[in-house]
Amino acid sequence: MIAQQLKPYVIGLDLGGTNSVFGIVDSRGEIKATTAIKTQTYDNVEDYVNASVEALHIIIDQVGGIDKIKAMGIGAPNANYYKGTIEYAPNIVWAHECVVPLADLFSKKLGIPVGITNDANAAAIGEMTYGVARGMKNFIVLTLGTGVGSGIVVNGQLLYGCDGFAGELGHVIMRRENGRLCGCGRKGCLEAYCSATGVARTAREFLSESDEPSLLRGLDPNKITSLDVSIAAGKGDALAHRVFDFTGEMLGEACADFAAFSSPEAFIFFGGLVKAGDLIMNPIKKSYDEHVLNVFKGKAQFLISGLDGSSAAVLGASAIGWDIQ
Amino acid sequence: MIAQQLKPYVIGLDLGGTNSVFGIVDSRGEIKATTAIKTQTYDNVEDYVNASVEALHIIIDQVGGIDKIKAMGIGAPNANYYKGTIEYAPNIVWAHECVVPLADLFSKKLGIPVGITNDANAAAIGEMTYGVARGMKNFIVLTLGTGVGSGIVVNGQLLYGCDGFAGELGHVIMRRENGRLCGCGRKGCLEAYCSATGVARTAREFLSESDEPSLLRGLDPNKITSLDVSIAAGKGDALAHRVFDFTGEMLGEACADFAAFSSPEAFIFFGGLVKAGDLIMNPIKKSYDEHVLNVFKGKAQFLISGLDGSSAAVLGASAIGWDIQ
Repeated sequence: MIAQQLKPYVIGLDLGGTNSVFGIVDSRGEIKATTAIKTQTYDNVEDYVNASVEALHIIIDQVGGIDKIKAMGIGAPNANYYKGTIEYAPNIVWAHECVVPLADLFSKKLGIPVGITNDANAAAIGEMTYGVARGMKNFIVLTLGTGVGSGIVVNGQLLYGCDGFAGELGHVIMRRENGRLCGCGRKGCLEAYCSATGVARTAREFLSESDEPSLLRGLDPNKITSLDVSIAAGKGDALAHRVFDFTGEMLGEACADFAAFSSPEAFIFFGGLVKAGDLIMNPIKKSYDEHVLNVFKGKAQFLISGLDGSSAAVLGASAIGWDIQ
Repeated sequence: MIAQQLKPYVIGLDLGGTNSVFGIVDSRGEIKATTAIKTQTYDNVEDYVNASVEALHIIIDQVGGIDKIKAMGIGAPNANYYKGTIEYAPNIVWAHECVVPLADLFSKKLGIPVGITNDANAAAIGEMTYGVARGMKNFIVLTLGTGVGSGIVVNGQLLYGCDGFAGELGHVIMRRENGRLCGCGRKGCLEAYCSATGVARTAREFLSESDEPSLLRGLDPNKITSLDVSIAAGKGDALAHRVFDFTGEMLGEACADFAAFSSPEAFIFFGGLVKAGDLIMNPIKKSYDEHVLNVFKGKAQFLISGLDGSSAAVLGASAIGWDIQ
């Protein structure tokens, strides 16, 4: 307890392909100071870490110095929790062809423990630490963004598996025949249907399959986004509604299978698509009830992330810091 | 350590619809004494427990008395680990319409701690304690018998989920269109294809779809069992081989999805179907390699249970006893 009082803060880093956003966070999830740098300005990881630490020291001083900081957590694509590395991350210039020991590099520069995990796992830890999963021991976070990510908590611990890469629920196969091509090179993955890009693709398919009037017909089909579909649905567009019904139905079916795996007390949805609210959540719940095994019926809650949208990723990343020894 | 030396044994009970088999087991998985009673001779659970304890006391005396016994573990259908109960078990006369506090009843009669879990979970704990999963922290046991059961271990702990019923992998959906009706009332479950009964059904389907000669044509189609298919395949029967290929291919696809969930270091197969050996294991491995997400390729072993077949269920049940406080 004394250590906790002396070191009341953790640093969170939301490391994206474009921006790296840092925040200093207290144990209640309040962000005390933030800063950011451009991820892709740097050719090599040493320069990136140096620039990060330079920016960080300014906000560290604002909260009373490095002695007030317990640890740092990083949420990043292709992160390996066990090894503290980023591995072959296609969207990060200084990590796309190699294994980068990012946790170690930051730890040496800052003199504090540093942990790293992927974005969806960070979201799950964030929900457990500051969000709607406080007190829960078994739940699944599904992040519906450009892709579909997942963070799975069982027995109060994040599920990392034998290699640190467990929880790739965006890549379970939902359509074994005539499945859509997924970015992973396989066919029929959940992500190919239920990510933001999947939703846009569903809209294009529905538009091309009929002459049904729709607000979406005014747009260039190749530029339709999930936000366009959401706006059209909000205006009562029937076709756009069907797109969300289709997406939610598949998510409900997928969650029914996930229940057979870990029987979670909640599914928590996170990311851009969730902004559609009931438009997506209602079909998910309906489909789940229709498809789940009897023994699991009525046991799981369906929740929307409790983390503040704009800072959710930083909060999630920071939450890793509390658990590091 | 002293307590362990003073109490070197655990009791295992393999509780089936027909027989209840008891064994007293040491820490290396050696069965020191066994006994059995008929499960269905008794109308109510009190009579069943009394008869069990009477039979047990004879073998307990053989190993030096109850003071030598640390605890008892029970593997049973529809068992709830958290509550210590059997709940609405269709095949057990004294538990098919009610919730029976079996762990408590045995514990009071014997004066030792008693734990209960379902058969597949018991198999997983058995593999971890005495079998091929010793030292593993992340693995999945699939039991291929009358049904398809599963026991999932993550971070060295059995995955029970929020209600004690996690790990129903026999009921993930493998065919979302025109799926076979499963015993659970839904369609397309893994169990409907890859259980012993599923294999027999596949054989009947293949026989009816063509006139291809097969050793299986000499049998009454309605009485074909998975053992018949195995024997025919062993004699080089092409149709029987295709039945195993089909079954193994689906199991491999399913395991590829399970890897996306918990990234296990091994899949361990248990039960009657596994006696077919390479006939089933080779197509499983081939299909897994074809279907699994790149990041998981080559990481999981595919193993056959390391527990002695005839006593595996008792060993698995007994292993629960070592963990009970």
